[in-house]
Amino acid sequence: MLEEIAQQPEALARTIDREREKVKRLGRRLREQDVDLIVLVARGSSDNAALFGRYLLEVTTGIPVALSAPSVVTLYNARLRLKRAAVIGVSQSGEGEDINRVLAEAREGGALCTVGITNEPDSAMTGVVHETLLTHGGRERSVAATKTYTGQLLHFYMLAEALADGGAPLGFEAIPEFAADALDLRPRIEEMVERYVFMENCVVVGRGLVYANAFEMALKLMETCYVVAERFSSADFLHGPLAVVERHFPIFAFAPPGVTLGGVRELLGRLKELRADTLAFTSDREVAALATRAVRLPEEINEMLAVIPYIIPAQLFAALLADAKGLDPDAPRSLAKVTRTL
Amino acid sequence: MLEEIAQQPEALARTIDREREKVKRLGRRLREQDVDLIVLVARGSSDNAALFGRYLLEVTTGIPVALSAPSVVTLYNARLRLKRAAVIGVSQSGEGEDINRVLAEAREGGALCTVGITNEPDSAMTGVVHETLLTHGGRERSVAATKTYTGQLLHFYMLAEALADGGAPLGFEAIPEFAADALDLRPRIEEMVERYVFMENCVVVGRGLVYANAFEMALKLMETCYVVAERFSSADFLHGPLAVVERHFPIFAFAPPGVTLGGVRELLGRLKELRADTLAFTSDREVAALATRAVRLPEEINEMLAVIPYIIPAQLFAALLADAKGLDPDAPRSLAKVTRTL
Repeated sequence: MLEEIAQQPEALARTIDREREKVKRLGRRLREQDVDLIVLVARGSSDNAALFGRYLLEVTTGIPVALSAPSVVTLYNARLRLKRAAVIGVSQSGEGEDINRVLAEAREGGALCTVGITNEPDSAMTGVVHETLLTHGGRERSVAATKTYTGQLLHFYMLAEALADGGAPLGFEAIPEFAADALDLRPRIEEMVERYVFMENCVVVGRGLVYANAFEMALKLMETCYVVAERFSSADFLHGPLAVVERHFPIFAFAPPGVTLGGVRELLGRLKELRADTLAFTSDREVAALATRAVRLPEEINEMLAVIPYIIPAQLFAALLADAKGLDPDAPRSLAKVTRTL
Repeated sequence: MLEEIAQQPEALARTIDREREKVKRLGRRLREQDVDLIVLVARGSSDNAALFGRYLLEVTTGIPVALSAPSVVTLYNARLRLKRAAVIGVSQSGEGEDINRVLAEAREGGALCTVGITNEPDSAMTGVVHETLLTHGGRERSVAATKTYTGQLLHFYMLAEALADGGAPLGFEAIPEFAADALDLRPRIEEMVERYVFMENCVVVGRGLVYANAFEMALKLMETCYVVAERFSSADFLHGPLAVVERHFPIFAFAPPGVTLGGVRELLGRLKELRADTLAFTSDREVAALATRAVRLPEEINEMLAVIPYIIPAQLFAALLADAKGLDPDAPRSLAKVTRTL
C-alpha cells in the first residue's frame, strides 16, 4: 500500500499523457450529442471517486449528475429512460458484475454513450462500453485502493474540462507535482499516528469538491485499521450526528481553501467547544489553530485541485496507522481484491 | 418521541385521506410535461426519505432520479440545466435555507416543476415551490424525526403511483394498518434494548427499497443514543467495511421479503461465521435463524410496502434504548430542531 501510494505522481503524469486526447474527443462527442444527464455507477473506492465526479461535473458543466443505485437495475429490473444520458462506470478491476450489468443495460436501452473508467485494459468492462478511459497505475496489488482512486479522480478533471469546452482550464496538469509534494508529509504523519493506535471509532468530514475524500479516508480506516469510521459532509454532520461527539471524540476534517472553508471552520470551532479531538488537513492558518492538530498542505493548492493532494496524507495515515497497530494493510481480514455483488 | 412514534398510523391515514387527490393531479401534470429527470433535495431524516423516493420512483416509473448536492448550487453557484426536470424538496420544517435556495434557483432556472414535501403549511418552502405536499403529522416536537419521516415516505408512494399511471397499484392504503401492527412490537423491543446499553458503535445494513431505513435507524441511534452507527447497503458493506467486523460486533439488518433478501441472507451467514452479533428485522424464518436475534414482522408485509412498518421497531429501539441509557431522546445534546446550513 505504501509503495502504491508513492507511485501516484508518476501514475497520474502517465495518465494525463496517454489519455488526455482521448478524453478530449469524448468530451466533444458528448457535447455534440447534447447530453442532458450524466449517470455514474460504481462501488467502494471507485464510488467515492464518482462522488467527486458528481460535484466537479455539475459545478463545471451544469449538466445534472446522478449516482446510480445498481440494484434498481440488477435486482428490480427497472428500465431507466436514458436516451439523452451518458452513463459512466468506474471500477479498478473492471470486473464488478453489477456495474457492468448497469452499463450493458444502459447501452441496450439506448443511452447516448456508455463509458468505463478502469485500470484493466482487458477487463469485462471494456467489452461492454462504447468508450474506455484507462488509469495507467500499473497493477494494483493492495486490497486498499490508492493509485486507482486518484487516477479515477484525474479522469473526472479531464472529462470536466473537455465537456465544459471554452470554460477556464482547470489546471490539472499541476496535480502530479502537488501529489509529489504531498508525499513529503510522510515523516509528519508517521510521527502522528502513534497517538491513534487505540482509536476505536471516528468521524471524517469534508464538503463539496473534497467530500469524496471523507468517504475515502473513512473507507481506508475501516479496511486497513478496523476503525469504525463514519463519514459526513460538514453540513449533514450538524443535522443529527453531531450528538455523538463527546470530549476527545476523534474527528478528521478536510479543509482546503475555497467556498467550503467557512463552514468547516465553523464546525471546528463548535467541536473545540465540545472538546473533540480534531485533525485538520488544511493550508489555512486559522483552521490549523482551531484544530487540535493539523497536517499543513501547501497554500498554492487551490480548492479546485485539492482532492488528489489532500487524500495522499490520509492514505499515508491509514497505511502507517495499520502498521503502528501491527496490522498488514495489504491483506485486510475478510476482504478480497475483487468483490462480486449483484 | 415515543408519543410521536405512536401517532404514526393516524398521521399516515390522515395524509392519504387529505393529499391523495392533490398528488394524483401533480402526477398527471408531470406525465403530461414529459418529465425526464427527478431531482430530490433534502437533509437529515428528510434526505433518508428522499433516498427511498429515489429507489421507488426509479423502480416504478423508470425516470432517472438524482439526489441533489445542495452545495453545488449554494456554495459553487452552479446553474444546473433542469428544463425537463421536476425538483422535489423534502423538509419537516420547510425552513432549511439551503434546500429552499436550491428549489428557488431551480424554479428561476426553468425547471418544469418544483415541489415541496413538508409538515409545515406556512413554512418558507411553500412560498418557493409550484406545488406543496403536506404530511399531516401535527407539530413534531421531538428533535428526532419519526412521524414526519414516515409521512414523507408515504408521499413518495402516492407520487410513484400517480406518475406510473396504469401500472399495478402499489397498495399503500394498507400501510397505516401495517404501522399499527408494528407498534405492537414495543414490549418485545423493550425487553431487547437492555442488552445494548453499553454498545458504543454498530453498523446498520439494508438494501434497495429499505436501504433508506439503514440510514434512518443509524441517524436515530446517533441522535438519541450517541452510538457511532454506520450505515451501508448490504452490497457496499462487502466492498471494504466488512473488515471492521470482529466477534460480537453489533450489526442491525433490515431483511424484508423480496429481491434483496437473498443478499442480506448471504451477508448474515458470513457475519455468523465472523461471530458478529446481529439483529434482523424480518418476516423470513431462515434469516431469523441466521441472525443472533430477530424482530419478526408479519409475513403479509411485502417488499414494496415494507419501508414504513419496518422502520417503526427501529424507531422504538432507539427511543427505548435512549431511555434505558438514562438519556432523554427528545433533547439530544448539541442539537436543535431546525438546523441551518448553507
